[in-house]
Amino acid sequence: MKLNCDLGESFGSWNMGLDDDVMPHINMANIACGFHAGDADVIAKTLKLAKQHKVQIGAHPSYPDLQGFGRRSMNLSEVELTNCLHYQIAALEGMAKVQGLTLSYVKPHGALYNDMMADEQMLQTVINAIANYPSKLKLMILATKNADKHTKIAKSLGVELILEAFADRQYTDDGHLVSRTLEGSVHNKTALLEQVTQLLSDGSVTTRSDKKLTLNAHSLCVHGDNADGIALIKDIKALCESAD
Amino acid sequence: MKLNCDLGESFGSWNMGLDDDVMPHINMANIACGFHAGDADVIAKTLKLAKQHKVQIGAHPSYPDLQGFGRRSMNLSEVELTNCLHYQIAALEGMAKVQGLTLSYVKPHGALYNDMMADEQMLQTVINAIANYPSKLKLMILATKNADKHTKIAKSLGVELILEAFADRQYTDDGHLVSRTLEGSVHNKTALLEQVTQLLSDGSVTTRSDKKLTLNAHSLCVHGDNADGIALIKDIKALCESAD
Amino acid sequence: MKLNCDLGESFGSWNMGLDDDVMPHINMANIACGFHAGDADVIAKTLKLAKQHKVQIGAHPSYPDLQGFGRRSMNLSEVELTNCLHYQIAALEGMAKVQGLTLSYVKPHGALYNDMMADEQMLQTVINAIANYPSKLKLMILATKNADKHTKIAKSLGVELILEAFADRQYTDDGHLVSRTLEGSVHNKTALLEQVTQLLSDGSVTTRSDKKLTLNAHSLCVHGDNADGIALIKDIKALCESAD
Amino acid sequence: MKLNCDLGESFGSWNMGLDDDVMPHINMANIACGFHAGDADVIAKTLKLAKQHKVQIGAHPSYPDLQGFGRRSMNLSEVELTNCLHYQIAALEGMAKVQGLTLSYVKPHGALYNDMMADEQMLQTVINAIANYPSKLKLMILATKNADKHTKIAKSLGVELILEAFADRQYTDDGHLVSRTLEGSVHNKTALLEQVTQLLSDGSVTTRSDKKLTLNAHSLCVHGDNADGIALIKDIKALCESAD
Repeated sequence: MKLNCDLGESFGSWNMGLDDDVMPHINMANIACGFHAGDADVIAKTLKLAKQHKVQIGAHPSYPDLQGFGRRSMNLSEVELTNCLHYQIAALEGMAKVQGLTLSYVKPHGALYNDMMADEQMLQTVINAIANYPSKLKLMILATKNADKHTKIAKSLGVELILEAFADRQYTDDGHLVSRTLEGSVHNKTALLEQVTQLLSDGSVTTRSDKKLTLNAHSLCVHGDNADGIALIKDIKALCESAD
Repeated sequence: MKLNCDLGESFGSWNMGLDDDVMPHINMANIACGFHAGDADVIAKTLKLAKQHKVQIGAHPSYPDLQGFGRRSMNLSEVELTNCLHYQIAALEGMAKVQGLTLSYVKPHGALYNDMMADEQMLQTVINAIANYPSKLKLMILATKNADKHTKIAKSLGVELILEAFADRQYTDDGHLVSRTLEGSVHNKTALLEQVTQLLSDGSVTTRSDKKLTLNAHSLCVHGDNADGIALIKDIKALCESAD
Repeated sequence: MKLNCDLGESFGSWNMGLDDDVMPHINMANIACGFHAGDADVIAKTLKLAKQHKVQIGAHPSYPDLQGFGRRSMNLSEVELTNCLHYQIAALEGMAKVQGLTLSYVKPHGALYNDMMADEQMLQTVINAIANYPSKLKLMILATKNADKHTKIAKSLGVELILEAFADRQYTDDGHLVSRTLEGSVHNKTALLEQVTQLLSDGSVTTRSDKKLTLNAHSLCVHGDNADGIALIKDIKALCESAD
Repeated sequence: MKLNCDLGESFGSWNMGLDDDVMPHINMANIACGFHAGDADVIAKTLKLAKQHKVQIGAHPSYPDLQGFGRRSMNLSEVELTNCLHYQIAALEGMAKVQGLTLSYVKPHGALYNDMMADEQMLQTVINAIANYPSKLKLMILATKNADKHTKIAKSLGVELILEAFADRQYTDDGHLVSRTLEGSVHNKTALLEQVTQLLSDGSVTTRSDKKLTLNAHSLCVHGDNADGIALIKDIKALCESAD
């Protein structure tokens, strides 16, 4: 089970995330491409850090909304979304190549990620965009009840999916994340580590309504915003390594 | 003598330049990368048009200044300038690859171009940035009295220069463009075509102080902002073809 | 019946709209505030032009989306929307005062306008934002079947509405504009002038389903994007003046 | 001696500065206007905090350069600079009025501040812009050897200056700040408090070349970026109060 984390989300003079502390402990870095966070300088620094720790690199494209940090849905046309993805992926891939690195995958950010998981048509557009991109890239999406269907759709277009699960979030019965606005939707440390243990033992989570749901995720999303997050990442990593 | 033109300088809902009318008549398209003009949609459209007319593609990166159209000098550090160039070049190159196109060269835009021609240290930074970019790209700069020196510096770093001359602009004795604020600095049609004819016959221009200056340029910069510009491009192209 | 028109929608080096040709013929200028179009320089020029022709000034705020020209819905919170409106209104009002002008009203732009007309809760947020703004400003919205209700809600908060009708657009039975994607939704010249004549004679329009709907609008929205638009504005103005 | 501090320099999801901790201890808040930092939401929050602590409000306008935090010189024309100032001042003033607050003064930010202090023509442009703004606003600039001259120029245009000194920075003999790149240019705590004590006792500083220079500043600029900064602000405030 690989750990992935959103990184490179500083911008200009503003810092966000403890990237230096997170990078040694994760396997895959989702790097912001400049549309919700990140800029050319932040990207260069983040790639250098990923290289140093031999971490796999993913593009983390977003709606074009710096002030909203890509967390506000925007109504883009299919063509706009496709071009917007290609531009961001290309910028990150080229900058990675400057440092001798190879881009491996794409994980959409924030509202774009949520909208894509809520709308099959939009997911299709994203898969098409990845399929039409000249480099062979995987697409990271949420492992839901529809994972098999999503995998088939992607495969038919030549795109391999990376299915991810969340350590800290409660699940609905169909494998989506329970809204943060609901009580109990974000796990405390104990519940979080239990969810990781369960995911590692049989690939399942226990949903909000207490049902067992098998996700078979390839990767776990973790967060490195503060010292508590870093400590949790280390705990999760230890669980993963003992499960290997 | 190849004709190059700045294209793809629309942005969002705002159109600029008669790209459809220019593209059939030029050899090299300097395509805006999103920092002074252009956006992912405009870039995609411009690349498609270049493909259709088999025009060579160059990245046209700029200082990050949409409102000022990249025409205002900005005091970037060497690292900032390098990353800023790599990001823009990478974005354009990747989007070109999506359409099966290969990026050939880089021509800095506006104030960045002028600052680079006025400051050897900055030109060196730009050359280094191109040299360190993983794809083999040429750099287009102004053919001045220092062209041989520039060519040697670039060659020592493995970068080939494309030296360009301007059809419509008067020259100083050292091969720089006379400031637009001075009377007579921008040629009328007759003077422009004379300058082209002279450039084609022996590679020289006659400077503002009436001296003959050999430039040996590889490319001529033309402008397609309006119907008059398009007519001139056709005239210039006819001169070039009759000179071949 | 006053004519209003969206103006000041150039940005940086990009021109949009024949503002010089439109301004002499209209009564109210909806001036972009920098979030979908316009910048400090464009605003200053547009205000000067409005002053010259003694045209009433309105702020034309938008979602923050330059590339999308404010035409893409964005999911802003109530607080974000309120602050976003206040910032834009304030910027325009202050720049108007620099030229000795008084801001009279606010007309939301594009997707913000459409979203506000489709969502009562959001309209309420916009009215509240205007009510809480320290200067006395009117709010321009679409004259629909719910105009009386809207007027009451606004009045209860101390905000006066300006109800506007569209000359060139077909109406649904509830007084909304028929989507541009449907055939016949945008009137040709004859139908447009007939709609204006009807609006002037008894305040009504004939809807897509051939029903008569009374709108009692205070203002007509016109467009000055090109020469045909300018000619139409003159025709509409002539109709209005003969009806006075 | 009043303490002023740059505040409201967060942006979107990125936090900067310990505004909550600083505001109780200062007299004047220089609030970012959205061009180098700050956005409509940050401005609203910062104004609310200033209101709560009865702190005087200043606009802190900048070159338009979010990524560079307004620290990179940009070559704006006089008209561009004037409009750029008016837009930012107006936005902040209007949002202040929404909360019942009155804008008192303007302090340019970063590279704009430095460029203005280095170039008399540009300082004149800034003073003109403040003079032409409809509300009566003071202008905060650096107290240098030319302070009397600056005061006269401003007075002739009806603008009152607020002359500020820096607690933590070493001075040149003409009253400019020694470049941060030079050793000893930024004072340690002891030297800082000594400089404050000297400023409070006879209005002078001791320059890098050990000369005594009288500044007669009205305000001291302090920084609240971290816990050490907050502690220093409290110390400086205590010195100021004991000197009153």
